[in-house]
Parts: sequence; structure tokens; C-alpha cells
Amino acid sequence: MLLRCYQLIMKKIKINKSIYNTNDQIAKKLKEYFTQTSTYVVNLLASPGAGKTSLLESTIEKLGNKVKITVIEGDPYTSIDSERIKAKDILSVQINTKSGCHLEGNMIQKALDELDCNDVDLLFIENVGNLLCPAPWDLGEDIKVVIASLPEGDDKPLKYPEIFLASDVLIVNKIDLEGFIDSSSDTLIKNAKSIKPYLDIFPLSCRSGKGIDNWTNWLESKINVTSD
Amino acid sequence: MLLRCYQLIMKKIKINKSIYNTNDQIAKKLKEYFTQTSTYVVNLLASPGAGKTSLLESTIEKLGNKVKITVIEGDPYTSIDSERIKAKDILSVQINTKSGCHLEGNMIQKALDELDCNDVDLLFIENVGNLLCPAPWDLGEDIKVVIASLPEGDDKPLKYPEIFLASDVLIVNKIDLEGFIDSSSDTLIKNAKSIKPYLDIFPLSCRSGKGIDNWTNWLESKINVTSD
Repeated sequence: MLLRCYQLIMKKIKINKSIYNTNDQIAKKLKEYFTQTSTYVVNLLASPGAGKTSLLESTIEKLGNKVKITVIEGDPYTSIDSERIKAKDILSVQINTKSGCHLEGNMIQKALDELDCNDVDLLFIENVGNLLCPAPWDLGEDIKVVIASLPEGDDKPLKYPEIFLASDVLIVNKIDLEGFIDSSSDTLIKNAKSIKPYLDIFPLSCRSGKGIDNWTNWLESKINVTSD
Repeated sequence: MLLRCYQLIMKKIKINKSIYNTNDQIAKKLKEYFTQTSTYVVNLLASPGAGKTSLLESTIEKLGNKVKITVIEGDPYTSIDSERIKAKDILSVQINTKSGCHLEGNMIQKALDELDCNDVDLLFIENVGNLLCPAPWDLGEDIKVVIASLPEGDDKPLKYPEIFLASDVLIVNKIDLEGFIDSSSDTLIKNAKSIKPYLDIFPLSCRSGKGIDNWTNWLESKINVTSD
């Protein structure tokens, strides 16, 4: 029984390595395409319901008139998020992963059949809601942004360090609820910095609008630097 | 390239089937052990930070004097949750899955080396915070309970139906925040029922205590029925 388990695990590791290698090759091609088309790409990561789509809506409201934005949406089922983005007059392609717990490079390649990145300055890839599985998957992005929602608790960077380690930016969302819940944005930020000291961090509330400008100003400066 | 991808996917499916079969055999043995020792087992599922450990704390406060409770905690890293349970004078065994996104039967088997279920009426298995991956894994439990936290949004049953379909009970947590957020518990419940009409549903707030009695009374009646 033990030997059988060992064989299965070793097979799984070998296949996972092959799958990661295949993904890295695809991600390299994606990166080349995004560079050629001067498209700045953000891979957006978070638990379910942390506010990924709300952040996109707020970002579109602030930057949509200045920057050509497009969104690839990843969800197990439904096109609810994609419809929300389209309601802002922004092109959005929905990927449904079904049981799949993260996006992979080949899914982005397929979604690009419906997009021409020559017309895009800023491409958001909203990953599947999951604080674990999307971490190691390169999608050819410029940056990974993780959203931690304050009502989820301030200990998430300690429990789920891999996604914080993989990320370049931390958005602390739903700070308007501070005082109505037991977690603190200061503690969350301290915990995140203990995992990755040089994260760029933006506490904000998509609902109240507080802090959104800090995020969109920073993002706009990144796009301008990249397209110079 | 396509052929290579196809081969990898077919290998992965074959191995996943073998792993599921192996898990089902282990789960069957776990179920036999839990039945022999008259232990009622709850597999607790939710996104990160939906309130799994808070629900356990509230349940222990209500039932801890009447029912012998023990907890197996699953988290990628840290023993924060296990320490919270131990602070309530309840035995708790921490499993750290690292990159692993769900608990499997063999992990429960190993945790049981540190427990004697002859001394346990009610065993909670707090799964890894993840609204996708734990759904298909049988741990020998009597029931699966999913927590949906209201600040996560009321559309989660539609986007992540598999975990709601796999569950027997839905806890709608953090209802004290209704009015401060855009999601509604009525809509969440309506969406959950559209996926699985016969879910037992308990709206509650671990923070305010509202609704906890409905849940603990129901749970106590289940344990009594089982141990009769």
C-alpha cells in the first residue's frame, strides 16, 4: 500500500514538473506577445469574494478614459463577473474552469483568440478565487497583485504565505468595515511584510472609494513607464 | 505539442482516478472507525477567513460542557487555529498541508495517531480554506458543512456550485454586517437553494452570537440520534 502511494506521488510530482515546464514555455510566449504589443498585464489573485471584480470596476472608473483596458475573467462557473465588466463598456472574455482551481497559460492563449492586444494598454487577468493554487502559475504577466479582504481576518499572510510571496502588490480591501469586525489592517499589513518586506501595499475600500486613487495613480505610473 | 499535452492530461486523469480510489478506500476505513467509536464527524468547508474556526469556538462554548468535542485543523501553514481551539480546553491536532489545497483521508489517518475517538462524541475536521478543491474528497465524515461568509458576496453558490452540491448544511456567517455591505443573506440563500434545494441552512453571526443556538441545537440533535 505504502509503495503504491509512493509510486503515485512520484508519478504525480514528475507530471506536475512536466506541466509546470510546459506552462513556463507558454508563459514565455505570452510575455513576448505582451511586450511586442506594449500591453501591461496584471494577474489578480484573491480568495473568493475578496473584491477582485469590484477593484476592476473601480479601476475602470478611474482610468478607463485614459487607458485602454481589457479583462480576462476566470471563474469555475457563470459569466457574472464578465457581465459586470462589460456593463462598464470594457471588453471582457470569460474563462470557466469548472473544477479547475487556477488559470494556466494555455487558457490565456485561448482567450487571446478573442482579443487583439495591439488595442490594449492594460490587461487584467482575474484569476479563480483561491488563495493557494494560482500562486505558482506564470501567465506571462508583468505583476501579480493579491487582494486580502479585511473581513477574512488579518492572519491570512501567515497561513497562506506562498501567494503573498509570489505577489508584487498587496491590496487590503474593505477597510470601511474596520471597527465592525475583529481584524485590523495594521496587523494584516505587518503580517504581510513579515512574509515579504518589499510589497507595494494599498489599503482601500472599493465600496466607499477611499484609497482607490493611491492604487490607480501607482498603476498608471507603471503603465506609462512600461510604454515609454 | 498538442499530442504531448493530450498525453499529459490523460496521464493526469488516470492518476487522479487512482488517487480518488485510494482515498475512497481510506475514507471507508475511517467511516468504519468513526462508527465503531460512535463519533459524529463534521467536515467543515469554506473560503479562507469565512469563519470556520470562529464557528468552532462558538459551538464549543455552547456544547462543550455536554458533548466531548475534538478538532482536526487543516491549514497550509501555522498552528494559529489549533491554538485558538486549545485555548478553549479542547484537544486539537494541526495538519499543515503547505502547498496542499485540501485534506485527504491519509492525512486524517495520520492525525488519528494522536487521538482516541472512543473519547470523542463530535469530531470537527476544519478543512483548508478553499471553496473548490476540498469538495470531492471523502474523509469518512457524517456531514459536510459549508460556510459562506456574507461579505464574500451572495453569488458564491452560483460560481462555486460543486462545494454547495457536496454539502449537507450551509452556514451563512457574518450576518451582523448586512447593511454595511452590498450582499444580502436572502439572495445568498436563494442562490444556494437553486444549486441544492434541500440544504439545511443556518444564518448566523459568530461575532454577535445571533443564530448560533439554531445551529448548535440542530447539531446536538444529530449527535443524539447517531449515538442512540
